[in-house]
Amino acid sequence: MSIVVAVVGATGVVGREMASILAERQPAGMTTVVALASERSSGSQIPFGNDTLTVSTLDDSSFDGVDYALFSAGGAIAAQYAPVAASKGCVVIDNSSYFRLDPSVPLVVPEVNPDAVHAHTGIIANPNCSTAQLVVVLNPLLKAAGLKRVSVATYQSVSGAGKSALQELESQSRSNLNGVTQEPSVFSHPIAFNLIPQIDSFLDNGYTKEEMKVTNETRKILGCPTLPVAATAVRVPVFISHSEAVSIQTDQPISVTEARRVLELAPGVVVMDDPSQQVYPTPRALSGKDEVAVGRIRVDLSQENGLCFWCVGDNLRKGAALNAVQILELLLANRHR
Amino acid sequence: MSIVVAVVGATGVVGREMASILAERQPAGMTTVVALASERSSGSQIPFGNDTLTVSTLDDSSFDGVDYALFSAGGAIAAQYAPVAASKGCVVIDNSSYFRLDPSVPLVVPEVNPDAVHAHTGIIANPNCSTAQLVVVLNPLLKAAGLKRVSVATYQSVSGAGKSALQELESQSRSNLNGVTQEPSVFSHPIAFNLIPQIDSFLDNGYTKEEMKVTNETRKILGCPTLPVAATAVRVPVFISHSEAVSIQTDQPISVTEARRVLELAPGVVVMDDPSQQVYPTPRALSGKDEVAVGRIRVDLSQENGLCFWCVGDNLRKGAALNAVQILELLLANRHR
Repeated sequence: MSIVVAVVGATGVVGREMASILAERQPAGMTTVVALASERSSGSQIPFGNDTLTVSTLDDSSFDGVDYALFSAGGAIAAQYAPVAASKGCVVIDNSSYFRLDPSVPLVVPEVNPDAVHAHTGIIANPNCSTAQLVVVLNPLLKAAGLKRVSVATYQSVSGAGKSALQELESQSRSNLNGVTQEPSVFSHPIAFNLIPQIDSFLDNGYTKEEMKVTNETRKILGCPTLPVAATAVRVPVFISHSEAVSIQTDQPISVTEARRVLELAPGVVVMDDPSQQVYPTPRALSGKDEVAVGRIRVDLSQENGLCFWCVGDNLRKGAALNAVQILELLLANRHR
Repeated sequence: MSIVVAVVGATGVVGREMASILAERQPAGMTTVVALASERSSGSQIPFGNDTLTVSTLDDSSFDGVDYALFSAGGAIAAQYAPVAASKGCVVIDNSSYFRLDPSVPLVVPEVNPDAVHAHTGIIANPNCSTAQLVVVLNPLLKAAGLKRVSVATYQSVSGAGKSALQELESQSRSNLNGVTQEPSVFSHPIAFNLIPQIDSFLDNGYTKEEMKVTNETRKILGCPTLPVAATAVRVPVFISHSEAVSIQTDQPISVTEARRVLELAPGVVVMDDPSQQVYPTPRALSGKDEVAVGRIRVDLSQENGLCFWCVGDNLRKGAALNAVQILELLLANRHR
């Protein structure tokens, strides 16, 4: 039996990473990978392991004969084409925010809520990058001690904003080092040697959409619909990997030793936490890695039953493409049951 | 009457900023500025407005005839020479952490606790950079609504680690952009296009010294000795200005509008908070500025009576040199009473 997988938005940063991870992991049963993108990119080639894929134009007929489609093409394309694909029996795993909070669409992080995948009716949502890496660390702590509140300050790399953002950080940094000011175009403010405390647009409550994604998606994935979660999302001049300074309050007291132990046992998590040896996660060390790394685990001095930690993950992998491929693997494994 | 002011550690990043700010502000009554540093720097010149100062070697006789000395030469030099200076009737304003928590030494941020300066017995401490900018924002909120807890994630520029750190960020960034890896020497990990969740060394409680400075100095300056304060201090690839994502819980409810109003009236604070126009503080915009800028003021969704904000200040100015000069100005004003 042949299983055909399409990557929609294959020429984008995440789309290319999806193709690369599919080539690397070769999900059991997958026989063919099809690359789809807008007409502008049609005919271009993207790497697929040692091979390449030729990009075809996305249209309504693209999903004929396709079993699974990994979308990373933004909300508008997802809104238009995911239902088309689903109507043809293709299961869509969409990386945009468009379907994530739809009650009929599972929002899945395989290490956290794998069973949610069963309820799909053709479309499954892949979470926001900052949320995915957060919930794999929160979930074992939730199970061990319960969660009363979560507060997060993010340090997000520019790759989350796509290829042109990577280019802007590079060329602006180069200009600055040569004493030349380059006007920002992708970002609203200079990003080289700077910070921008805004990701996505602002909502009426003073939070950005990115920050509210962390709040709402964390609740949905953890199955805690009223969990108080507040985020401050900040863009930093880093190419790849998002970092998060997290403070939580648990229902039950949990010691640092016990927290470290449950995190060491948690799937998808690696504990890098040996301050005396200056061991803790950094974005450059985590780029290209599958795991979310956690360190700086300590008592939160500002609240009872509080813990602080620092977690870092590759936003293109666990934060996007890897998680989508893991969902595909879940679906393929279920198919054989 | 002549008033002689010495800058100790005059060739360092902060020492040079002290000289520059003295030249700029010309504190009333100051007639002469003397630059002091280690023997190695003796005879070198540092800018003083349009003029220069020639650096003399620091020794026990350096303080004869000196009325005030601004120290930025580290804890060991402060420990050795501040008492010498004080014994000769010279009032020391020290930027190191050495005396800050000494109950007999005032720790002063002029906008917050100017009256504390009166109790000095020859030595006054200047706070940690992250603390100084934090307390000017916290104090008006404390007065308006009381403070129950404070949680801070910092985004600290490399200039806080001195000249060699500025050079390391610059040369490492340049190398990286040319595809060359440069081993770190000032920092424990690469800083170019990276983040380091460690500033200063680790203590037994899992916090760094930098983080505990924020806790302990904030308490002392605000006069709230048991206020729960927890910090995560992170080095970011920015040259100048520290940024902070802050979450507080107040005793009494305070609306965002009211918080913004008290901050607009607060000395040393400028409110930059118009999300719809993408107005909020960034480190590059605040470099060279005297004020601490605050934005992203909003309800903290994770706790009752909670507020979140983002504040940015020039760590060499308000975080160090400017605050020291402001303390000098306070002393000079009191002298004339």
